[in-house]
Amino acid sequence: MINYNPKEWFTFIFRFHKADTFRKLFPLMIAVSLYGFILAYLELEYWSLINSSYVKNLSLMHSVLGFVISLLLVFRTNTAYDRWWEGRKQWGALVNVSRNLSIKLAGYLEDESDRLYLSKLIPLYARTLRGHLRANVNSDEISDLVEIDKTHIPNQIALRISGRIFELHKQHKISSEQLIILTKDIDVFTDVCGACERIKNTPIPFSYNVFIKKFIFFYVMTLPIGWVFSFGYFVVPIVVFVLYVFASLELIAEEIEDPFGSDANDLPLDTMCNNIEKHVKEILN
Amino acid sequence: MINYNPKEWFTFIFRFHKADTFRKLFPLMIAVSLYGFILAYLELEYWSLINSSYVKNLSLMHSVLGFVISLLLVFRTNTAYDRWWEGRKQWGALVNVSRNLSIKLAGYLEDESDRLYLSKLIPLYARTLRGHLRANVNSDEISDLVEIDKTHIPNQIALRISGRIFELHKQHKISSEQLIILTKDIDVFTDVCGACERIKNTPIPFSYNVFIKKFIFFYVMTLPIGWVFSFGYFVVPIVVFVLYVFASLELIAEEIEDPFGSDANDLPLDTMCNNIEKHVKEILN
Amino acid sequence: MINYNPKEWFTFIFRFHKADTFRKLFPLMIAVSLYGFILAYLELEYWSLINSSYVKNLSLMHSVLGFVISLLLVFRTNTAYDRWWEGRKQWGALVNVSRNLSIKLAGYLEDESDRLYLSKLIPLYARTLRGHLRANVNSDEISDLVEIDKTHIPNQIALRISGRIFELHKQHKISSEQLIILTKDIDVFTDVCGACERIKNTPIPFSYNVFIKKFIFFYVMTLPIGWVFSFGYFVVPIVVFVLYVFASLELIAEEIEDPFGSDANDLPLDTMCNNIEKHVKEILN
Amino acid sequence: MINYNPKEWFTFIFRFHKADTFRKLFPLMIAVSLYGFILAYLELEYWSLINSSYVKNLSLMHSVLGFVISLLLVFRTNTAYDRWWEGRKQWGALVNVSRNLSIKLAGYLEDESDRLYLSKLIPLYARTLRGHLRANVNSDEISDLVEIDKTHIPNQIALRISGRIFELHKQHKISSEQLIILTKDIDVFTDVCGACERIKNTPIPFSYNVFIKKFIFFYVMTLPIGWVFSFGYFVVPIVVFVLYVFASLELIAEEIEDPFGSDANDLPLDTMCNNIEKHVKEILN
Amino acid sequence: MINYNPKEWFTFIFRFHKADTFRKLFPLMIAVSLYGFILAYLELEYWSLINSSYVKNLSLMHSVLGFVISLLLVFRTNTAYDRWWEGRKQWGALVNVSRNLSIKLAGYLEDESDRLYLSKLIPLYARTLRGHLRANVNSDEISDLVEIDKTHIPNQIALRISGRIFELHKQHKISSEQLIILTKDIDVFTDVCGACERIKNTPIPFSYNVFIKKFIFFYVMTLPIGWVFSFGYFVVPIVVFVLYVFASLELIAEEIEDPFGSDANDLPLDTMCNNIEKHVKEILN
Repeated sequence: MINYNPKEWFTFIFRFHKADTFRKLFPLMIAVSLYGFILAYLELEYWSLINSSYVKNLSLMHSVLGFVISLLLVFRTNTAYDRWWEGRKQWGALVNVSRNLSIKLAGYLEDESDRLYLSKLIPLYARTLRGHLRANVNSDEISDLVEIDKTHIPNQIALRISGRIFELHKQHKISSEQLIILTKDIDVFTDVCGACERIKNTPIPFSYNVFIKKFIFFYVMTLPIGWVFSFGYFVVPIVVFVLYVFASLELIAEEIEDPFGSDANDLPLDTMCNNIEKHVKEILN
Repeated sequence: MINYNPKEWFTFIFRFHKADTFRKLFPLMIAVSLYGFILAYLELEYWSLINSSYVKNLSLMHSVLGFVISLLLVFRTNTAYDRWWEGRKQWGALVNVSRNLSIKLAGYLEDESDRLYLSKLIPLYARTLRGHLRANVNSDEISDLVEIDKTHIPNQIALRISGRIFELHKQHKISSEQLIILTKDIDVFTDVCGACERIKNTPIPFSYNVFIKKFIFFYVMTLPIGWVFSFGYFVVPIVVFVLYVFASLELIAEEIEDPFGSDANDLPLDTMCNNIEKHVKEILN
Repeated sequence: MINYNPKEWFTFIFRFHKADTFRKLFPLMIAVSLYGFILAYLELEYWSLINSSYVKNLSLMHSVLGFVISLLLVFRTNTAYDRWWEGRKQWGALVNVSRNLSIKLAGYLEDESDRLYLSKLIPLYARTLRGHLRANVNSDEISDLVEIDKTHIPNQIALRISGRIFELHKQHKISSEQLIILTKDIDVFTDVCGACERIKNTPIPFSYNVFIKKFIFFYVMTLPIGWVFSFGYFVVPIVVFVLYVFASLELIAEEIEDPFGSDANDLPLDTMCNNIEKHVKEILN
Repeated sequence: MINYNPKEWFTFIFRFHKADTFRKLFPLMIAVSLYGFILAYLELEYWSLINSSYVKNLSLMHSVLGFVISLLLVFRTNTAYDRWWEGRKQWGALVNVSRNLSIKLAGYLEDESDRLYLSKLIPLYARTLRGHLRANVNSDEISDLVEIDKTHIPNQIALRISGRIFELHKQHKISSEQLIILTKDIDVFTDVCGACERIKNTPIPFSYNVFIKKFIFFYVMTLPIGWVFSFGYFVVPIVVFVLYVFASLELIAEEIEDPFGSDANDLPLDTMCNNIEKHVKEILN
Repeated sequence: MINYNPKEWFTFIFRFHKADTFRKLFPLMIAVSLYGFILAYLELEYWSLINSSYVKNLSLMHSVLGFVISLLLVFRTNTAYDRWWEGRKQWGALVNVSRNLSIKLAGYLEDESDRLYLSKLIPLYARTLRGHLRANVNSDEISDLVEIDKTHIPNQIALRISGRIFELHKQHKISSEQLIILTKDIDVFTDVCGACERIKNTPIPFSYNVFIKKFIFFYVMTLPIGWVFSFGYFVVPIVVFVLYVFASLELIAEEIEDPFGSDANDLPLDTMCNNIEKHVKEILN
């Protein structure tokens, strides 16, 4: 994630950041410029369509469909943002539960070795979940605690955490009431993992994705046909700007829909993993 | 569900996937083309209505109603998507609870046979729920565990799971505190089942469904009447495109509203059932 | 509730179901037709206003207010649908809790008479809640269990259920841990009842209701004044269609806002009551 | 709250209820009528601006900003309605918890005096919360139970309720498990109180309030400048109608934003307090 | 936060409060005025573009993009408001849990010194959380209780609170059941802290921020190019008004997105901290 000051308008408007959709859309914008130019040349000079009122009125259709496309793009924006924000909430829940569990364990456990063991495992859950969501678990981190021949590493870490706590219960270091309390916290780890997997593995339904892309494409491609008569060759920059707006919204939605990668708009999982480690150690050691 | 890479714009725009609304709407689009052509012929050549300003202005009505129809279709899209996403969340909850319950049982149970029995029943719940929602329970899968003469199979599986756990409690293999913890998890199974039944059995109110379909039909059918004067015979592809946009939205909404079938846009229940089985076995065995 | 197949477009468009808003609005549509015809006659022939440009431009106002009225109707649609869906969720919760409670009781209770008593009372709660929400409790159903001289019957049933469970606890047939578990379920009954009462007794604020109706009325009534000049006598069907669209949305919202009646769009309470009875008996007997 | 039948369209449209925004806006509408008339006179007759095309085109700006103002008013309507509905939900939770707590106490307590004491205190919480939210606690009601020299009366009632229950626990009239169950219910009282205080004390952010009002004012005030050329003196009723629509939405939002007063649109707190009292007494006595 | 009476329309419209966006945008509005004036001069007098129909039609593009920009700004407004309101809810939860915890401790604890210690620590949590969110913890307040060499002060306070309660449990002043009850409340403190950190540290995704600002800028900057022909020099105030509307919405969203500062629109954290202190002392002492 990029740390930025939302109030620096000037920078936002004139700098083209690496993550800016302007950059990504640049090749497409060039292609559409050419298309618009050729279309304008054909209509205005080659075919001299200037008198045909029929082609001229095409913008009528665009104004009727303008609502639908705008509303659809905002629907897309909303659902993508909701996933991004839900992903953030789930990781926030992981931060909270790591801290809450540590605060309780700090009160319950008197044995230094138990505290040390768990103060290693709790931040490890966050770290392996990050690796699991990015499909690259770092085997060094976990080699001394868990054998990684099994596929679902976060489940294995959860099993280690709950296993130790059940063992402490059997050794009467933890009472039955404390076990009830701790079990609820441990459930949260797997719940967060499941929710993140859900966000990651379930993009917006296929049909919407296809439909929105097709719709944007035909809408923008037919736009210059009618507008050539109103704008002449100026139709080129104008259609490019409309394309920039519509395609940017779709592009940003695509990017933030899966918020667990390491793109510029993705969630700061690294920072959060480090914070969990720092706080858990602060509390338990 | 179709696995797809949301970033392949080119493929989306030019390939006509089997699940694409374009295919499904094709016959309707042909019919509307013919209707538009006949209407254009009648108005332009047979009746030569060109001078009647009254018919020409019909698009005024369409622009006033254009907002309402766009907003209604987005309302429809939103509610259908919410059901689809809620269905996904419920199945996500089933995945989570299957894993959490297994992690706990792995800590509590020492007897191999108890673990084996429950590691069979937990994934079976997901599998029979899938069958129940698709109205085709596979009797082979469950024949050795449950007699299937009773109608509501998932309830019967839940009864078996909780029955075994109450029994283990009576045998003092599970403490009272552990029973409280486990009972909460077992409740989730039936809650998920109830929520899925709700989504499946309660489509959008009848009146909305009728009203939206009627509205789209009359809106699109009256569209060419006025537009013939602006577009001539070009009115045919233009009205077909407007129909494609409006009807696609209604069609996709219909499809994803009930997300438990085996259509292209439906949820990947098979994958999830397999994952539950894999993870539960990984944890409990 | 009407069971329907959402994919039968043809039927929806051409059949006029008894619950269709088209039927209900028919008298109003006739009245507005007459009004439109008289207005058109007066403006076009009696006063011959054709030259007055001022009246002609009235549609400018309608296009400015067209957004607001569309957005308001969608707001109305959204809130009404949310109530309807929340009502469905609450009844879904009732179905779930009836099943979950039965599953637990099936495990806890060994005495046949206790099971029989509770397997009668649990479905009775749903049935009396339905009666309570429709303000016609069927006294036959409950006569042998509860004296109905008290007003709030569902509360009395809840009191009977929890009373029996507390009694079983005193007789040591249910342990303290089991009591905690069961109490949570019993709470849900009254929570569902309260939520349904809330939905039923709290329609959308009075001011919105008045304002939306006044707004639709003046909007539609002033519409033909300006449009007469664009449409001539065709203004009659056009204004009637606009009225049909706007008034239908308000009408459907009114109908589904209170989802517990026995109208065509209301929730299938009867089916749900029967399902609860069937499932509870299947589990407990 | 006004009890009304949402289906009486005729009454809604032609009667001007005391709570109708039409009444409240009447003086403002008169003022704007005068302003519009003077403007029309100046532009049409005094300055005879008829030929200046520049002023005529002002409605272009209004159509660009028309979306924003409509969407903002619907945003305002949505947030105000959400607060109103959340307020209703919180009071619904109070009704539910009062009933649930009574049902449990009816099962737990055998001593008549304990039941009587609590059957007084539970409805009193609702009553003092109503007074607290309206800033006029009726001292007569509470004089015999609580000394009212302390400021936060609902907290004092909650303290009395939980105090008695803790005492009953010490006297072994309530078991430890029952204490856990009851404590959750008592928490709900204070949670409802806190949520209501939040809704009451936190209006929409100051900047939005200022901005929306300024925007409506300048939008409506500049509207007749351009429209005079399209409508002549008819601009007066037209602008007044637009003002009525925009200002009504803001006015209703203001009114329902704080739903705990005794205005026509506010929640029926008195009825709910009486219902709580009736139900609690029915259950506990 | 500014305390204001939402019904004083007159004041809102004509006074320019210090927090008003009008003030903040004043320099920008002057700059755009100049830009508009120079553009109008160039187009109208220097280049005399009056006959070129191509530039004139630019407003066609603005009307197509008008929906998108309006919907995007409302999306921005909605998400910013949601964060602000969630922040308020979290602090409301902190108020509630502080009161609920105190009510319970008032019933459980008999030792004056325990009550005094906890009645200091509970309000201190709110106070240090406020400091933590504003990145200026006041060291005086906490010096006698917590050593502040560690970074995350709120965690340290939570550790002190739970530490004391675990100690009281070990001294048998608090039963196991009471410990379960109290632990849930203590969890809420850290949950609130985590949620506030989430709101504070996760602004809207970078790409949206850049895109919305770029979009507003190009939209407003190109607006006068076409409108000069419709408005002449009047284009200057008109474009400035449009800028005021669009930029205000973005500016207010920026401001309320992080609601924990001490700006005019931020949440009244100081008042809430004082209320918590007052109520906790009222209940516990």
